[in-house]
Amino acid sequence: MTVEDPDSTAPGARTPAPRTAAAAGSGPSARPHGDLERYTGLFAQRTQVMKSSAMRDLMALTERPDVISLAGGLADTTLFPAEDLAKVLSHMAAGDAARALQYAPTEGISEIRPCLAAVMAAEGTEVDPDDILVTTGGQQVIDLMCKTLVDPGDVIVAEGPTYPGAVPTFSAYQADLVQIEMDDDGMRIDVLETTLDQLEREGRTPKFIYTIPTFQNPGGVTMSLERRKRLVEVATEREILVLEDNPYGLLRYEGESLPTLFTLDGGRFVVYGGTLSKILSPGIRVGWTVAPAPVRQKMIIGKQGSDLNSSSMSQLFVAYYFRERDWRDYVQRQSDVYRARRDVMLAALQEHMPEGTTWTRPQGGLFVWVTFPAWVDTTDLLARALQHDVAFVPGRAAFLDGRGGNSMRINFSGVTEDDIRTGIARICTVIEEQMELYASLTGTTRPRSGGAASEPPPAPRTADAPVVPLRTAGRRRGNG
Amino acid sequence: MTVEDPDSTAPGARTPAPRTAAAAGSGPSARPHGDLERYTGLFAQRTQVMKSSAMRDLMALTERPDVISLAGGLADTTLFPAEDLAKVLSHMAAGDAARALQYAPTEGISEIRPCLAAVMAAEGTEVDPDDILVTTGGQQVIDLMCKTLVDPGDVIVAEGPTYPGAVPTFSAYQADLVQIEMDDDGMRIDVLETTLDQLEREGRTPKFIYTIPTFQNPGGVTMSLERRKRLVEVATEREILVLEDNPYGLLRYEGESLPTLFTLDGGRFVVYGGTLSKILSPGIRVGWTVAPAPVRQKMIIGKQGSDLNSSSMSQLFVAYYFRERDWRDYVQRQSDVYRARRDVMLAALQEHMPEGTTWTRPQGGLFVWVTFPAWVDTTDLLARALQHDVAFVPGRAAFLDGRGGNSMRINFSGVTEDDIRTGIARICTVIEEQMELYASLTGTTRPRSGGAASEPPPAPRTADAPVVPLRTAGRRRGNG
Repeated sequence: MTVEDPDSTAPGARTPAPRTAAAAGSGPSARPHGDLERYTGLFAQRTQVMKSSAMRDLMALTERPDVISLAGGLADTTLFPAEDLAKVLSHMAAGDAARALQYAPTEGISEIRPCLAAVMAAEGTEVDPDDILVTTGGQQVIDLMCKTLVDPGDVIVAEGPTYPGAVPTFSAYQADLVQIEMDDDGMRIDVLETTLDQLEREGRTPKFIYTIPTFQNPGGVTMSLERRKRLVEVATEREILVLEDNPYGLLRYEGESLPTLFTLDGGRFVVYGGTLSKILSPGIRVGWTVAPAPVRQKMIIGKQGSDLNSSSMSQLFVAYYFRERDWRDYVQRQSDVYRARRDVMLAALQEHMPEGTTWTRPQGGLFVWVTFPAWVDTTDLLARALQHDVAFVPGRAAFLDGRGGNSMRINFSGVTEDDIRTGIARICTVIEEQMELYASLTGTTRPRSGGAASEPPPAPRTADAPVVPLRTAGRRRGNG
Repeated sequence: MTVEDPDSTAPGARTPAPRTAAAAGSGPSARPHGDLERYTGLFAQRTQVMKSSAMRDLMALTERPDVISLAGGLADTTLFPAEDLAKVLSHMAAGDAARALQYAPTEGISEIRPCLAAVMAAEGTEVDPDDILVTTGGQQVIDLMCKTLVDPGDVIVAEGPTYPGAVPTFSAYQADLVQIEMDDDGMRIDVLETTLDQLEREGRTPKFIYTIPTFQNPGGVTMSLERRKRLVEVATEREILVLEDNPYGLLRYEGESLPTLFTLDGGRFVVYGGTLSKILSPGIRVGWTVAPAPVRQKMIIGKQGSDLNSSSMSQLFVAYYFRERDWRDYVQRQSDVYRARRDVMLAALQEHMPEGTTWTRPQGGLFVWVTFPAWVDTTDLLARALQHDVAFVPGRAAFLDGRGGNSMRINFSGVTEDDIRTGIARICTVIEEQMELYASLTGTTRPRSGGAASEPPPAPRTADAPVVPLRTAGRRRGNG
């Protein structure tokens, strides 16, 4: 199976996780007079395509203590010592109370910039601290990039699958998202070029290419050096901006670090997006971007309109933390924990997953991408899984075009090893149930690995490109 | 003079504060290859009308210690005891470290909602805590409201002058802003109705009416009870949403509290926007909104795309602070300080301002709005004022149509009494210089109060409505 199989004809194809959308919406005490009709005529056109992120909707479920959620993308913040947090915050309060409570410049507080530059330097990416624009998490980088560049109907190119949390952002700007299939070496740059050619013939130049080259979310794969170089060449040749989203680069569990696109490009066409969400804390909402000056200037004005500035308290906390503690040590401790959890997850998949299922084997980051036989619908599966107290992100949340119906994203960083084992086993129980049902309905024996269950995929958007599966590991029953 | 005089024909009319725009932009170390031409073709159409907020650009100048900035809109966070901050943060870290560092639901952390409901209740506004959506400052309420409702070219109605920080937000959504003049009783609802009639004849229904009814920014005036009731009636009759932005309601220095529009309306057409920025801290970036359920649901999806959730650390800090301290006591202490500063500012204006100048006399909030004779250009004046180490917000920043050229907003909450006196005196020195220049250029004696300097105002947008000046106090030389 391949992740790029268009799946819009699958039974039950629908927008991501509609069953849980209400959970994040209006609570039991939703205001009276909330009849949709009255307001429908007032809504902006963008709201017709604005979809809720399945990942965020599922957050509500993670608060149910009996659910093992493999759906999140959480750093395990219990690894951060509470007494360290108390000390650093106390020192910040003693030294900078009034500043922590006050507005900050839109660009960010000066002391935090060298910290963020140091994070980039740890991956070999050199940047002038003054060029950093602090944002409200990495999410705001994507939003400001769209705000600066995207008119309704403009093309954004991204990986297929792409970060589920970017989908509502792209939708809000009414972008036309074109997704490029991946394999074990990340985005297929040859397919990208074919697609760009096709778009050019249609008179459509993408406003930017969105990529997570390292430990991709949700694919778990990493773009090879060769492809990185070629992507930067393509961007330069065609004068197309690239947004390199790099939340996970420092969470590497094996292998050698690769240069960022930003480094290879020198900051000419590559906009860098960073965040402290995965290496320190998502709760402080501190991300940043480095962009060419004209783009940066527009992003600053955009941020003024969005939220004036990011939390001063968060920014000063970071500055004090970097001064008083070894932030690299905490990244290392997290990496050690996440590596072990990844290994547990891969072993559990190997042990439990039925034949015909494949999954990626990430060298870092937070996620494994699992692909089931074509007849499996993971959106349906999620509803059943929740009855078994386990959650994941259904693959459709990572596409805007209905693909991904037989895939899912599962997270290992925010879940204990025991819960990973139990969670995977529960998912497999549900899958086995579906397989029995499938067999009884079709009057066949359960489908064997690959073969019968896998219909030839419909022609992808770039039909002349060979289809390469996004898989690095698979389960063949009996040889595990 | 009146604030609603169209001023687009004034010499030197231009977009707000262009001289300072560069300050917030690219620093000395702006990235190379930053030639605007290369990227211009890529920018979204909205960037052509996205204007930098003069107020935010001026923030950079407030960091120069020699400048007395009356330009800000700052709560004085030095009033918050550093040891209190340290204690509350330590308790939060001890009790909830992992949650403070973790993602939160998009709607907000549950414990903070009763706190925010308590703030509303203190002004007599009852709300179910579950109906509250936490935002990244009050600014994000305006942004999400636009995101939910505004297509390019849609009409937003606001006061004239309006909150300068809302101008870049409205611009980013390519809204057509129609501004309604005010007098001492706030927005002229009769003019609003005439304007809505006119718009209706043009087939254009405003997407919402944006108002700060209490201690308006920048006007300093408060909407009367009679007008509040009529505004809610108008909204109901015409089925138009109202965004009631209420950052300052609890900062009342005299007079009786009035019911909010939200209370009068029952939450049917009025969306409430609140923030802790002025009564606790702008640096934590905690605001909130209460909206009819269908609108709220769209705002939640919009927020997912913007920044996923507001800072968990900030939200938990608020919850602990409200639990451990008397937040009302801090609001009272701030109010006492701000009241004294307001009185100093009004006295300094009375002492120093040349004849023909008028200003508002706010019963609360942070701002005084000053209107000079028509020949004064406050954008030009600002450049000279900065040479004298004093800053204010030029009036054009509060309009999208070029008006406000002879007005300015000055702040008294974030400035010491001595600095207020010195700052006002410096502004008056600059004004006196301009008056001498004016007299020498025109060969006249300096203009006397009102009369000669005040040209009859051009017809306002709603020509059938009488023009009423936004003034509650004035300076007549010799009787101060």
